[in-house]
Amino acid sequence: MNIAILGTGQVAQTIGTALVKLGHQVTLGSRTEHNENGVAWAEANGGQTHNFATAAKEAELVFNCTAGMHSLSVVQQTGAENLAGKVLIDVANPLDFSQGFPPTLSVCNDQSLAEQIQQALPDTLVVKALNTVANPVMVEPSRVPCQHSLPICGNDDRAKEVVKELLQQLGWQNDQILDLGDITNARGTEMYLALWVRLYGALGTGDFNIQIQKAD
Amino acid sequence: MNIAILGTGQVAQTIGTALVKLGHQVTLGSRTEHNENGVAWAEANGGQTHNFATAAKEAELVFNCTAGMHSLSVVQQTGAENLAGKVLIDVANPLDFSQGFPPTLSVCNDQSLAEQIQQALPDTLVVKALNTVANPVMVEPSRVPCQHSLPICGNDDRAKEVVKELLQQLGWQNDQILDLGDITNARGTEMYLALWVRLYGALGTGDFNIQIQKAD
Repeated sequence: MNIAILGTGQVAQTIGTALVKLGHQVTLGSRTEHNENGVAWAEANGGQTHNFATAAKEAELVFNCTAGMHSLSVVQQTGAENLAGKVLIDVANPLDFSQGFPPTLSVCNDQSLAEQIQQALPDTLVVKALNTVANPVMVEPSRVPCQHSLPICGNDDRAKEVVKELLQQLGWQNDQILDLGDITNARGTEMYLALWVRLYGALGTGDFNIQIQKAD
Repeated sequence: MNIAILGTGQVAQTIGTALVKLGHQVTLGSRTEHNENGVAWAEANGGQTHNFATAAKEAELVFNCTAGMHSLSVVQQTGAENLAGKVLIDVANPLDFSQGFPPTLSVCNDQSLAEQIQQALPDTLVVKALNTVANPVMVEPSRVPCQHSLPICGNDDRAKEVVKELLQQLGWQNDQILDLGDITNARGTEMYLALWVRLYGALGTGDFNIQIQKAD
């Protein structure tokens, strides 16, 4: 599949590298055409890099791996026309570190970043996924023991099937993926980050996930 | 121990009944002295009921099991002098159901209900606990399999030790209890409710908990 990843940071690079290994054509998108991180990653991993608009235009599916505080501006730079009709997997969290650690969320409670992106891109099929785990876990879920859980959500069932298929390629088993329903449920998975960052603090690592245990 | 529980609803009654069975003297506190739920519970379970102020005044330790939207008003009615020097276990979540299900939070992100209660009661030792599970799980954690987790937080280490001891009486094992640090961490455990209510919706039951799984 021809996949664009908006962003050139650690999350973008980790997902990009995993997707290249799976045989996908991957382009990291950046504000500029020759972003230093993007060029270095592309050369080292056999991928490509371009500006946001061109990366998205040529792709069948797009990941948003930009910092959540900037994601709406990135989407605007990318252009709705380059994202129309495509599945966009929103991995970002609207974390605001301006007051230090732990961060607050720049949007929450009666709104979410994923909904804002869906509103800005009415012709794009936004699916929220992977935002509840750190990037090593995203692409290698087996590093965490047991049937830990990955909640996803989005308005379009066929888009969610496409995402589930891609997640399975990344190592997620079907019964680890929990569909919460429409995109408003991203409020839940993004607000969980307020607990995640504190678990990260208490455990001293981000290399964990939660497993949902039902009563017998 | 002489324990007061602010509230006469399901959470208050469930915790109250469990504490009576453990041999504690329990008084459910209510706005009025002869609250119908409180009187019925006390007669059926060998407990007592009183108004908030009297219940708290005579207690060594106090639970807040009122609806989170009303908890600050309840604390005010109870009177800081009746809660001074005591451990207060805050079980409430500031859930606002005025727009239906799923609820929003009436306070979150850069503040939490537990912090507001601690600010209103500077001489009370507030510990946030048990707010991340439904009431059947609170008093019978073994109904959920495996080492699922209970995050707690509060400013006073000795108060947290008292709470841990009481949680162990209720069936929580020491290594299930995760101390996140000071009371500001209640932002994390309260905001997790935005995910909890959606897991409740997707699973069709509140009879679950999360287990934190670290990478090997």
